[in-house]
Amino acid sequence: MSLLNKTLEKIEPLNEEMMKRSKERVDFLLKPVGSLGVLEEIAAQLSGITGEMFPKISQKAMLVFAGDHGVFEEGVSAAPQEVTGLMTHMTVAGKSGVGALCKQAGADIFVCDVGMISDAAPDANIIVKKIRKGTANMRKGPAMTYDEAKRALEVGIEVAEKAIKDGYTILGTGEVGICNTTPSAAIFAVLGGVDPRELTGAGANLSEDKMIHKAQVIRDAIALNKPDKKDAIDVLAKVGGLEIGAMAGAMLAGAANHVPVVIDGFISTAAAAIAIALKPEVKGFLICSHASEEKGAAFGSKFIGAKPFLNMGMRLGEGSGAAIAFNIIEGALYMNREMATYGDVGLGVV
Amino acid sequence: MSLLNKTLEKIEPLNEEMMKRSKERVDFLLKPVGSLGVLEEIAAQLSGITGEMFPKISQKAMLVFAGDHGVFEEGVSAAPQEVTGLMTHMTVAGKSGVGALCKQAGADIFVCDVGMISDAAPDANIIVKKIRKGTANMRKGPAMTYDEAKRALEVGIEVAEKAIKDGYTILGTGEVGICNTTPSAAIFAVLGGVDPRELTGAGANLSEDKMIHKAQVIRDAIALNKPDKKDAIDVLAKVGGLEIGAMAGAMLAGAANHVPVVIDGFISTAAAAIAIALKPEVKGFLICSHASEEKGAAFGSKFIGAKPFLNMGMRLGEGSGAAIAFNIIEGALYMNREMATYGDVGLGVV
Repeated sequence: MSLLNKTLEKIEPLNEEMMKRSKERVDFLLKPVGSLGVLEEIAAQLSGITGEMFPKISQKAMLVFAGDHGVFEEGVSAAPQEVTGLMTHMTVAGKSGVGALCKQAGADIFVCDVGMISDAAPDANIIVKKIRKGTANMRKGPAMTYDEAKRALEVGIEVAEKAIKDGYTILGTGEVGICNTTPSAAIFAVLGGVDPRELTGAGANLSEDKMIHKAQVIRDAIALNKPDKKDAIDVLAKVGGLEIGAMAGAMLAGAANHVPVVIDGFISTAAAAIAIALKPEVKGFLICSHASEEKGAAFGSKFIGAKPFLNMGMRLGEGSGAAIAFNIIEGALYMNREMATYGDVGLGVV
Repeated sequence: MSLLNKTLEKIEPLNEEMMKRSKERVDFLLKPVGSLGVLEEIAAQLSGITGEMFPKISQKAMLVFAGDHGVFEEGVSAAPQEVTGLMTHMTVAGKSGVGALCKQAGADIFVCDVGMISDAAPDANIIVKKIRKGTANMRKGPAMTYDEAKRALEVGIEVAEKAIKDGYTILGTGEVGICNTTPSAAIFAVLGGVDPRELTGAGANLSEDKMIHKAQVIRDAIALNKPDKKDAIDVLAKVGGLEIGAMAGAMLAGAANHVPVVIDGFISTAAAAIAIALKPEVKGFLICSHASEEKGAAFGSKFIGAKPFLNMGMRLGEGSGAAIAFNIIEGALYMNREMATYGDVGLGVV
């Protein structure tokens, strides 16, 4: 059996019994029931994911996947394509946005080249699992083959499972890939059945004119390639991206191994939509972090049923929002573990 | 001159020149301009507050003020009044909500009794600056005298200035005081000129009937005491609370000493409204953390012009939302300090 199929088969629903026990404990903590809101939900979810009342999440890994996009040649990005390779190196060095925020959060970053055009410097400490040098231009044909899309998912699984094996107990997903808001919008346009213009935002500060053009490029790509919305791998192959597939794979691996996966903004959410389409149970293992300012993000979060709790006006991607969420998720565990209960002080629950 | 007046006089506007320089640097960091949203705003604000490009905020202090409220006897709370004393001890021990979250954030907690009915255990490590054993019932007369209100502000100044002198470079405000959503709603009803029912929420899980009653109690108190909305100390005295005054004082002290103050939810925001009414320049020194679920909180944030960035469905108070924000604020500094610039990599700004 392929690694992908084996992983999909391993994914089980959340441990409902443990979630219930966690919720009971949290309701008995010394505070009005429900008054810690999302922290209470996260504590229950983490127990459902791990099967433990007090899971440990001190070992945090941010998995950043890098890939390029053939559709770049249609003029859908304000940034030059060399920035993908540059940001990959900067991220490993802790000098990108996600790099800086992971330092604050005490998270280690692993960067994987799943499909950059450029090659990473040999000494750059980048995991090289390149499937191809960027996708093809989806306005002229499928972005990649069906097998390449599967392989992208498996690269994500491999990188995530290595991190889990090395002791990381919570994963974040991030990405680098100039113009990857375009395939992300395309994925939601197909899966959600909406016009690309409703999903097409500024990316890295694109002008209004170019946004209209960007939407047309996506419309053309969908019309040409006719992705089958019932087959997420087909969608990923025809209008997706290599790093998006790898992120989806990392989510599958997290779920298969009972490890929570923190998703970031628009592009992560597109990857989550692919992962959930492949196995709906994955949803329970994902923690959504921030409400991205990128135009399609609100649609994307709603589409996968996520409720982002950070409202920071951010639209950088890279995993930056997920990095900020790490501390908050850890806070949920501190709540559960450190707070006294009504029982401890001999009072009735309020 | 009184400590209060001396403090008010010391407060200056933000350092605009430094804010501008910080914004220029942040715009030159390796990311699309504006793409880190609130983090960028916080970085500039911190520079404006401290006059430094890279302020240090590693030493975090959460100041928790505790007081009781005479209006409790009107049946405006679901929790018994002894809980104030209990939660004060629990907070010092790190076993309350804010206690647990401060552990995660690496923040030290200082608890000050500014007006509890009960006395703290002598060995409890609580700062005792008790002005009176709870306020009077504002439905029957002023909650406290004008002088007591001034003294409450000064207690906050004293506690905050001690923390600043001891090396803390960022302060959070928290509180313990059963039924203190009632005076908080009263403060906004007076300053904002709205009916209390629009501001009256569940507090610690109050029933709908009791909420209607709570609003009437506030209406009665305002009608009886006729607080002068032009005199924030009069408002604080007649319908406020001792811990609310002390929190406002802590904010004044932060501003006077160029130290950022992170405010929490509804009650902190009421205190902020008092502080800002006393000295509008204080506003620039406050960082608003979370959008509390407590009904009046959205009004309160809007009233003081704050944009909370955490959307966690929380309504515990105590400083719990401010504790979560500490890490995020630190993240803004990591962004500014750790990220490469476009200049470093020889690229033009996107």
